[in-house]
Amino acid sequence: MDERTMLGLLADRLPRAGDDAAVIDGLVVTIDMLHETTDFPPGTTRYTAGWRAVGASLSDVAAMGAEPTAAVAVYGAPVFEQAEILAFVDGARDVCEGAGSEYVGGDLDSHEEFTVSTAAVGRTDDPVLRSGARPGDAICVTGTLGRSAGAVRLFERGELERANELFRFEPRIEAGRALAPYASAMMDSSDGLARSLHQLAEASACGMAVETPLPVDDVVDSVAGPDERLELGAFFGEDFELVCTIPEPHLPKAKSATPTPLTRIGTVVEEGITLDGEPMPDRGYTHQG
Amino acid sequence: MDERTMLGLLADRLPRAGDDAAVIDGLVVTIDMLHETTDFPPGTTRYTAGWRAVGASLSDVAAMGAEPTAAVAVYGAPVFEQAEILAFVDGARDVCEGAGSEYVGGDLDSHEEFTVSTAAVGRTDDPVLRSGARPGDAICVTGTLGRSAGAVRLFERGELERANELFRFEPRIEAGRALAPYASAMMDSSDGLARSLHQLAEASACGMAVETPLPVDDVVDSVAGPDERLELGAFFGEDFELVCTIPEPHLPKAKSATPTPLTRIGTVVEEGITLDGEPMPDRGYTHQG
Repeated sequence: MDERTMLGLLADRLPRAGDDAAVIDGLVVTIDMLHETTDFPPGTTRYTAGWRAVGASLSDVAAMGAEPTAAVAVYGAPVFEQAEILAFVDGARDVCEGAGSEYVGGDLDSHEEFTVSTAAVGRTDDPVLRSGARPGDAICVTGTLGRSAGAVRLFERGELERANELFRFEPRIEAGRALAPYASAMMDSSDGLARSLHQLAEASACGMAVETPLPVDDVVDSVAGPDERLELGAFFGEDFELVCTIPEPHLPKAKSATPTPLTRIGTVVEEGITLDGEPMPDRGYTHQG
Repeated sequence: MDERTMLGLLADRLPRAGDDAAVIDGLVVTIDMLHETTDFPPGTTRYTAGWRAVGASLSDVAAMGAEPTAAVAVYGAPVFEQAEILAFVDGARDVCEGAGSEYVGGDLDSHEEFTVSTAAVGRTDDPVLRSGARPGDAICVTGTLGRSAGAVRLFERGELERANELFRFEPRIEAGRALAPYASAMMDSSDGLARSLHQLAEASACGMAVETPLPVDDVVDSVAGPDERLELGAFFGEDFELVCTIPEPHLPKAKSATPTPLTRIGTVVEEGITLDGEPMPDRGYTHQG
């Protein structure tokens, strides 16, 4: 059974699940797990790993339109190297500081594979769910897509400094809070734009019609040919941008309120998920290994 | 470098770390990771694993004297078996329900080894830290010690039902809240009584003089000879009882306020950690494998 099917089955038992983070009495809570073989290519520094792992949880808080309060992490590794752990903690602290949050610690765990689990908590009185998109709403995305895809190619090429830099994304906290009063539905793009659109459509019982050009990051053009541009931009994922739907009348105000560039990429429709009129498959990039 | 040394080094960078959970603006946050080879003996059901993993985080909230609000978990496994995941979620939900908290969901992660990460959040305006013990305070422990040690022996013997039952401990939420107004220092006994005493002593810059008999659970006598009684009761750990220090004048009120039996096992002293006058080593049970 795949992950998506299973999460669907659990929905009945866990009514607060189904969004990027759970909300209970205005408190936003989320937890994630990343590990070496699937999430940290060779060459990823521990500083970047700390930044990115904690950033992933902060991004979930951002996707609810919430304000993060604190984050914690478990650092699981076969050996505890002082320099590596201090670098990890520095990365975790720095991404929290940039997000107006505080990294308050966590735990160490002996683990065969380098494995990191992170949790973040935040607050909002008016969370933005995945279920509020309505036909006619504009579909928008913050920032640019494909940065993590580009980073992975750069890791493969051995351009480690630039790859690490791209991997240290900025969780879209301010954008999420700015969009919250206007967005009808929102989530982050961690599974790729295509999957995000399918999940928003499913939760909102509607369709999504998206048109190129998409705001694909320049790094994609520098590491891949034009034939891969869409694949890396729309399907690869792990970018942690916000994908949201905004009722047309609110769009100008939403755009001017958001510190991060906000690009309209399409319109919510009654049914079907399409890219330039063709069905857009519900899949992420096929990761190697 | 061992885990304890490393956590000590991190203290400077993480001023809110060092207790069972971090506290920020009255919000209590904690995260833990458990995995198959070290935490779930063969025969542990997924229901018990969900209960125990989430319970471990709730116990950290209890140790701060706080009220838990919600818990989340990541379920990491090589395959996602529907029955196993539903059982895990049921265990997680049930332990939360018994603790007056809510299990609000989490995530799935493909992972070679069965690995669970859990986080819990709670609230308190007056957390009990590890650092408040003062010479003359009574040292107390809730419930009985050695239940998890007994469970591990029963797993080895194939008495799985009783072993699972013992493994599903009750996080001491009510006891923690009842003790909070009286306790000068508190933590849980997840690393064993001996390690808890050393950690309380270190944080409070004092010593601990403990006397037998300790409140060792009857299950220990049923699975081990008298020569192992103290080893399994005082050093094995993973029991998730509360170990606290209480100023003498408060002791009668603390005892009557606590729903779980509270046993005085010694007295805080100026220096040295002793059991019946002999040095009590700072070690847990030597787990096999």
